[in-house]
Amino acid sequence: MRTDLFLIPGSVDKKNLTGKTVVLIDVLRASTTICQALHSGARAVIPFEEPGEAAEMRAKLGQGDALLAGEREGIKIDNFDLGNSPREFTPQSVAGKTVILTTSNGTRAYNKAKPAALILTGAIVNISKVAARVARAGNDLVIMCAGREGQFSIEDSICGGMLIDKLYTEHKLEMELNDAASLALLLYRSNRKAIKETIAQGEHGRYLQRINFGEDVLLAGEADSIPVLPVLRDSRIIIEESE
Amino acid sequence: MRTDLFLIPGSVDKKNLTGKTVVLIDVLRASTTICQALHSGARAVIPFEEPGEAAEMRAKLGQGDALLAGEREGIKIDNFDLGNSPREFTPQSVAGKTVILTTSNGTRAYNKAKPAALILTGAIVNISKVAARVARAGNDLVIMCAGREGQFSIEDSICGGMLIDKLYTEHKLEMELNDAASLALLLYRSNRKAIKETIAQGEHGRYLQRINFGEDVLLAGEADSIPVLPVLRDSRIIIEESE
Repeated sequence: MRTDLFLIPGSVDKKNLTGKTVVLIDVLRASTTICQALHSGARAVIPFEEPGEAAEMRAKLGQGDALLAGEREGIKIDNFDLGNSPREFTPQSVAGKTVILTTSNGTRAYNKAKPAALILTGAIVNISKVAARVARAGNDLVIMCAGREGQFSIEDSICGGMLIDKLYTEHKLEMELNDAASLALLLYRSNRKAIKETIAQGEHGRYLQRINFGEDVLLAGEADSIPVLPVLRDSRIIIEESE
Repeated sequence: MRTDLFLIPGSVDKKNLTGKTVVLIDVLRASTTICQALHSGARAVIPFEEPGEAAEMRAKLGQGDALLAGEREGIKIDNFDLGNSPREFTPQSVAGKTVILTTSNGTRAYNKAKPAALILTGAIVNISKVAARVARAGNDLVIMCAGREGQFSIEDSICGGMLIDKLYTEHKLEMELNDAASLALLLYRSNRKAIKETIAQGEHGRYLQRINFGEDVLLAGEADSIPVLPVLRDSRIIIEESE
């Protein structure tokens, strides 16, 4: 299985995604939040690049059925119902509702991934579910790390490496890796005993702690703590029915 | 000292370079070739993005004084005097001449770096010279890895990590690293006993071996084997006079 990891989404060529499985990773925090929202009973999460598009969609769906969620620079967007902290996405707040989400880094990649055969949301909190689905699909794999403001961020690459490690060790896949995938694997293996600490010491982790979201950083580093498999279908992220 | 490493040159913002030291790294092969050319007595290397610009400059300088060198997809450009293999840049071929060089990845970054206070060419073959000059300058540091076709490549990041390691261990600098710089340092430290093997197993290393430049890959991994310090002055890369 050919496995290409991209440290920054800007470097992915859409044309190379046809027929592949794509895993989109934004550990801090969109991927983690999407897992939490679906786990708490949200019907779907619809990702948007821009707050304006998100607000339009909410007007279409109506206030009763849909929640508007998202952040810029980590902070809830003005007049939105929710920010991007997974801890806000409780069953009380999201069960039965559609969540319309726009974030600085993570939600932008879904549009780009559309030519792919299967589009999964990957995080540390659901890593084993993602690995099992990638192995079952058997397609070539593209791992797109969201990064932060167009730059590499350590938590997404560690998560990508964790996925590759599981595909090797638990699913016994033979993989041909690009350099970035080899790097992510190394990064994971050399940090596997201190994943949470490494994430907390990264640039994004430190930033979130400074703006009082330190608990989110810890939560996002807890492997398999939110065991759901978010799949993109017709522009909506849902839990796969066959699960 | 603030130290930011960029895994891909596209992600660098020119505005953030003012007053800083920039180290441009393209281990395979532009940086290594520039070191070798100057070590063999070339008067200067002038980097160009495009073969057409390079050929115009040679027409200006005249055939007697200037050599036209460069590659695309690793292969010498048609009608050029030299390709981009460091082994071609012998004293017999380049002493006393100006080398006009255009390569796929490495030479493009020089234009981008121009706002910086000091622009050095970094490779594994001259790593200690570069580290000493960075420490002496004392400016904040930006390490720009050339990568390959806009993608991360392992050899440039290892070299960046090697530089950071030397700044810590030999020059005792205190540094604040961005995530990519931390990553490069980890990559170097976890591979320090097998630098050549890791480079040879990387995507670019494997490609160069396939097109019969395997010796260049080995040569480029030999630490401090070409101890020169190439500095950009007025669009020309020369050996710094005060050395």
